[in-house]
Amino acid sequence: MSMEGARIMPNYSPKEFRALTWHDATPAFATGTDSPRAYLERCLETIAAREPVVQAWVVRNEAGAREAADASTARWKAGQPLSPIDGMPLGVKDLLETRDMPTQMGCKAYEGNFPRRDNAAIWALRGAGAVVLGKTVTTELGGVHPGPTTNPFDSTRTPGGSSSGSAAAVGARMVPATIGTQVAGSIIRPASYCGNFALKPTQGAINRGERQATSMSTHGPHAGSLEDMWQVAIEIARRAGGDPGRLGLFGPSTTPQARKPMTLAVMEAEGWALMDAASQAAFETLIERIRAAGVTVLRRGDHPMIETFERALQGVQALTGAITAWENHWAIRNLIATGGPDGVSRRGQSVVTNAEKWTPEDYRAALLRREELRAHHAALAPVVEALIAPASPGVAPPWSPDVPGEPLAPRPTGDAVYNTPSSALGAPVVTSPMTAVGGMPMGIQLVGQPHTDAAMTAIARWMVGTIEPVIA
Amino acid sequence: MSMEGARIMPNYSPKEFRALTWHDATPAFATGTDSPRAYLERCLETIAAREPVVQAWVVRNEAGAREAADASTARWKAGQPLSPIDGMPLGVKDLLETRDMPTQMGCKAYEGNFPRRDNAAIWALRGAGAVVLGKTVTTELGGVHPGPTTNPFDSTRTPGGSSSGSAAAVGARMVPATIGTQVAGSIIRPASYCGNFALKPTQGAINRGERQATSMSTHGPHAGSLEDMWQVAIEIARRAGGDPGRLGLFGPSTTPQARKPMTLAVMEAEGWALMDAASQAAFETLIERIRAAGVTVLRRGDHPMIETFERALQGVQALTGAITAWENHWAIRNLIATGGPDGVSRRGQSVVTNAEKWTPEDYRAALLRREELRAHHAALAPVVEALIAPASPGVAPPWSPDVPGEPLAPRPTGDAVYNTPSSALGAPVVTSPMTAVGGMPMGIQLVGQPHTDAAMTAIARWMVGTIEPVIA
Repeated sequence: MSMEGARIMPNYSPKEFRALTWHDATPAFATGTDSPRAYLERCLETIAAREPVVQAWVVRNEAGAREAADASTARWKAGQPLSPIDGMPLGVKDLLETRDMPTQMGCKAYEGNFPRRDNAAIWALRGAGAVVLGKTVTTELGGVHPGPTTNPFDSTRTPGGSSSGSAAAVGARMVPATIGTQVAGSIIRPASYCGNFALKPTQGAINRGERQATSMSTHGPHAGSLEDMWQVAIEIARRAGGDPGRLGLFGPSTTPQARKPMTLAVMEAEGWALMDAASQAAFETLIERIRAAGVTVLRRGDHPMIETFERALQGVQALTGAITAWENHWAIRNLIATGGPDGVSRRGQSVVTNAEKWTPEDYRAALLRREELRAHHAALAPVVEALIAPASPGVAPPWSPDVPGEPLAPRPTGDAVYNTPSSALGAPVVTSPMTAVGGMPMGIQLVGQPHTDAAMTAIARWMVGTIEPVIA
Repeated sequence: MSMEGARIMPNYSPKEFRALTWHDATPAFATGTDSPRAYLERCLETIAAREPVVQAWVVRNEAGAREAADASTARWKAGQPLSPIDGMPLGVKDLLETRDMPTQMGCKAYEGNFPRRDNAAIWALRGAGAVVLGKTVTTELGGVHPGPTTNPFDSTRTPGGSSSGSAAAVGARMVPATIGTQVAGSIIRPASYCGNFALKPTQGAINRGERQATSMSTHGPHAGSLEDMWQVAIEIARRAGGDPGRLGLFGPSTTPQARKPMTLAVMEAEGWALMDAASQAAFETLIERIRAAGVTVLRRGDHPMIETFERALQGVQALTGAITAWENHWAIRNLIATGGPDGVSRRGQSVVTNAEKWTPEDYRAALLRREELRAHHAALAPVVEALIAPASPGVAPPWSPDVPGEPLAPRPTGDAVYNTPSSALGAPVVTSPMTAVGGMPMGIQLVGQPHTDAAMTAIARWMVGTIEPVIA
């Protein structure tokens, strides 16, 4: 069944939607009533049906995946899986190197790039027995210029970026989990738009392998469940550790148990004022339900340190953008020099032009400003267990394709305004699909102190298990 | 004139040897009595004469270098050089990517690797007008397996590693400066063996570009003079900054003035006990001369905090080796998997085998041990301005080529024992060719607190200008 050409209409309900999950499928692998190979074939059927419209994938290695799934099937039958995710079909954002598929980064200058190496996380996932099915669409170099992917719940809307294909593939039930990356808002925003669970880990907690070129980038899982999300993360960290010089991901070897928080605080940041009334109301309803469950939820007016933190966050979106542009500028200059005039998009080139107005001293000053933010956040550790906020300022906006001769649309994959705070803070974030507005998902994020990734997962698990989702 | 086959005999004297320098050549470029193109041709003549024995280079782009030198010649004539190093011919260690030459890393698995991009430092150096003449020999992947380069002062001895070609090219007067890299001892040790000045910068102070994969690696200049050494470093940092998230290199835009220190402390570390009597005596004589010039030089028995620091350094060589092996293991596994059975040498493969005995928890524990060392070092800041030590435990040892069927020689490029302390500390080091033992150079290093790169350069300048070198 092809859906090519037919618009998918907004139809999402967090109560009705059943994402594809893995953790609850594995018991049948041991008994032989199901198998990783059969699971993979079901994924491929879904992909065949939905990919023509969703366009989540750049390339798939289906033959390699089938071979890996067969090997996994044999291990489960023998009672010797390599890990709880042995056999799990995964999509990998096309920024990470994979030894069996090219890595083209959504960028013309990288067309045909095929270094035949695995990124550290991919190397670790293969060691855990996971089946690397294919590469998922990224915006150009993980930046602002979009790829072809559409939102799985409304094909006239963006899936978000830059992990567009990773989020859409999970939202479309093509695979149970994917790997995304985030520098500003590239995991949490698309996860919010596509009804995913996702972890943006503590800065440095998951080894980025060859992708260490910016100070706020992270690799993290998108998944249909918190269980699969955590398991993918911890299987990477147990094998490949964190970034060089970092302590890596802390937490249990299986998903943390649900834990009810005592005190949360709403983070309004720069996004609250940008949200429409329906999205604000959906969030407020959720907060009321959390309070009704016996959790103290503070607002900025309730505590001077929260108010001070909120004030410090003003300007953080511009700050993160400018820091990242500077960190990338020499590499993009390389691509422009060697990739020909069209090697990098006009959007990508404009980022460099802005960065080149900076000197290293400007960059230093920006890093110190970021340190100030981190100090404000650290001061909140004794006050609240987590910050709670919308994971995006509303639902996925409609596509705004470029019109030749017109100025470029500034944010064709949506606004990262609710994601740049945690990126700047190096803080862990878990987003959960807890609200719907007009038939589209909007995620709810929990932001913790560095190295509380497991605690954020535990609070999310409590929230998902206890609080009724909001449909507005 | 070819010297192929003829042994070069130990003949080094720090009083007689005149390294190739750039900073004092540039005044003649403006007047037209000399030019960057003529300077380059003199370099090429030296290379033609000495390369058959020294074997410092993997590949050179002589046509590109001549073109760049001509452009520089025109800029100097017009009174508009891009920087004080506009036109300077440079060698670049073959671990760093260059857009016009392959990057083969001394590793069979990387044969023909040609990503057509510049490393951040190379990008910056081209922006300063420098002439990237060629790629210099590295040990395999910057590790323990040697390349073909010989010591320019005795062809039966090692030039040191892993920046073998960078150090030898400067020692052989082929070019005024080169770029090396250090994780354990790979800049300072070969610089010591080859009579170079060299800066191993503060961790993160010079942008490593695509090479961020280990927590103790740095990029730094080898040079025939402190002036050229500093100028190369600061021209990189002014354009490409430091590593992402780091503050970058601090210091003046031209070489810091000489500064006499008030108090130094000898760092014995794990190397002192390994040195022969002649090398120890040469170092002691130098310390006596520094004291005679009015500087207080403390020894470990003189101050309990120095003694405590020295005790903390016991085991640092094993610690740095184990940390780096863990950080590299997934990438080397990739090479072994994709590069065929001979893609990585037996030495390279043995490193991985050791690393795989570790878990991420072992790595964490090692990082915490490194933090302890850094705390001991930071505590010395109010006590001494710099640590002073031999830059290697004696002069370059003879080559010990591998014998088929015999166990591998453990350190065929010499011992990094005097370099691992500063690598573990993330501390800046400047080495200067201040002693000779048996006609071979032995460098003297100054180790500072993080971000005192300029102060170390200033003290080195005082030492070189004031203290009579020791010939033993």
